[in-house]
Amino acid sequence: MKIAVLCGGVGGAKLADGLSRALPPENLTIIVNTGDDFEHLGLLICPDLDTVCYTLAGIANPETGWGRADESWNALAAIDSLGGPSWFRLGDRDLGTHLERTRCLAQGQTLSQVTSGFCRSWNILPNVIPMSDRAVRTMVSTEAYGELTFQDYFVRRRCEPKVTGFRFSGAEHALPAPGTLEAIEAADAVILSPSNPWVSLDPILALPGIRSAVGRKPVAAVSSIIGGKTVKGPAAKMFQELGFEPSAPAIALHYRDILDGFILDQVDLALGGDIRPLGIQVAAFQTLMNSPADRRRLAEDVLNFIPSIL
Amino acid sequence: MKIAVLCGGVGGAKLADGLSRALPPENLTIIVNTGDDFEHLGLLICPDLDTVCYTLAGIANPETGWGRADESWNALAAIDSLGGPSWFRLGDRDLGTHLERTRCLAQGQTLSQVTSGFCRSWNILPNVIPMSDRAVRTMVSTEAYGELTFQDYFVRRRCEPKVTGFRFSGAEHALPAPGTLEAIEAADAVILSPSNPWVSLDPILALPGIRSAVGRKPVAAVSSIIGGKTVKGPAAKMFQELGFEPSAPAIALHYRDILDGFILDQVDLALGGDIRPLGIQVAAFQTLMNSPADRRRLAEDVLNFIPSIL
Repeated sequence: MKIAVLCGGVGGAKLADGLSRALPPENLTIIVNTGDDFEHLGLLICPDLDTVCYTLAGIANPETGWGRADESWNALAAIDSLGGPSWFRLGDRDLGTHLERTRCLAQGQTLSQVTSGFCRSWNILPNVIPMSDRAVRTMVSTEAYGELTFQDYFVRRRCEPKVTGFRFSGAEHALPAPGTLEAIEAADAVILSPSNPWVSLDPILALPGIRSAVGRKPVAAVSSIIGGKTVKGPAAKMFQELGFEPSAPAIALHYRDILDGFILDQVDLALGGDIRPLGIQVAAFQTLMNSPADRRRLAEDVLNFIPSIL
Repeated sequence: MKIAVLCGGVGGAKLADGLSRALPPENLTIIVNTGDDFEHLGLLICPDLDTVCYTLAGIANPETGWGRADESWNALAAIDSLGGPSWFRLGDRDLGTHLERTRCLAQGQTLSQVTSGFCRSWNILPNVIPMSDRAVRTMVSTEAYGELTFQDYFVRRRCEPKVTGFRFSGAEHALPAPGTLEAIEAADAVILSPSNPWVSLDPILALPGIRSAVGRKPVAAVSSIIGGKTVKGPAAKMFQELGFEPSAPAIALHYRDILDGFILDQVDLALGGDIRPLGIQVAAFQTLMNSPADRRRLAEDVLNFIPSIL
């Protein structure tokens, strides 16, 4: 079975890692959000792409959900002691990634070419593609501060401002990266990973041609909300601020136009009844991924569910 | 007594440190070579400026003569594992300096403004000035490879190619940084530190107005050659390849047009007789600086010698 999975950071990276353990690498394409990307200290930083790659390479920090394992913080300490910006936590090993990526881009490589090279160096076998080689920047509209860049909202202001909407700046002109649409066309099914719908998956779906290409395929989403809460990140808070009760069915409703199947957590089993009337197949599994074994088990559960939506 | 000292990396940094311990800070201006500066990984790296500042701040690596103490190498290891350039050894703390400097320059600060800010952060009290805010790049002519950039010659090729000459690209149009000529004018004497004459001090003297301003002052040089050898670096090898016997008198001859006094090491005491006929006062001291106490003692010896050339 050929699978294309749309992917944000932590939750998406874990499911992608599980899928990479459950599928032959040539049957898996991981399409990663780059709406969170930003320029900092002259470097292009791609948080979701790095979280996915670090996770697949087995070098991710298991505690933080971002950054690298066995990390040191000496460059940041030096910058801080010079009065420079230290609000964005950059570890030394992580900095090496951003420096080398920025160097390769300055030499004329595209982001997808750089990513492909990094994946070879890290022995990552599935195809990992940034959603676009063009800059798309997620902007967060807030009541108190107007429109904020994503990292300003997410890191500097710790998701505190009340959200009123989102805009994916540049998305209308940003072609999907080479191979993205082809991988979706070639897939037997598309999986929407348990990433934030508003700021991790919507930016991917906002690119020209992606939503319609996905819509032509059997699509299964894994809920990023369990028992009304998110495992990590502000998705539940965003649903609430935008006037929706944060719940697994809210996720299913969000994607109803393209969704054929929906996977919620066992604790939300009873909520399946709210989703099936939309014509969406529902299954309940243990969706928390606390260990690599959890990731693989969930991936296998999802893959076993796919035939029911084909 | 007001002193301006012209300064390259290691030896110059040590003497500057000694002078900073022996003089009130307002009486000392340290003018630093930037001909070794280069762009690497998108960052401006200023090896001599950093060696001087790290030394004065007490955070220099005492073993290598470059870079910072208590250093880690995780960013470089990450770059290396991605197939990126690792020939130039950049420690993590050191990287913080280059990242923050490059950020400040991109925001419109000049190199001398950035340096001044860094000195405040590092509690460096004497006035440290990069020789120019404009890029000057030392180019090394070699028999085997033609003209090489300095770091290509110095780091990548480990000073192995035979040298035929030097060029200070951009020097003719690079105004000395603000305060440089004023500090020389205001000084009672100018000291040429025990740095490489060809590639550390000549670039400074090549800037418009510097050589003539220095020439109008009493000038004392400290030999960077002891017993026919350099403590560190390729100066002796360069003298030889350019057809001169490497010796303390060769240094004095190199600067004879601007020199009033010359300090050689005690082991070279007998060579004073070759220099005095040039009309240059000579003194012999222990010029090796193995400890901070050595630095201060040599600085005091040099300062005590100055009145004899006034």
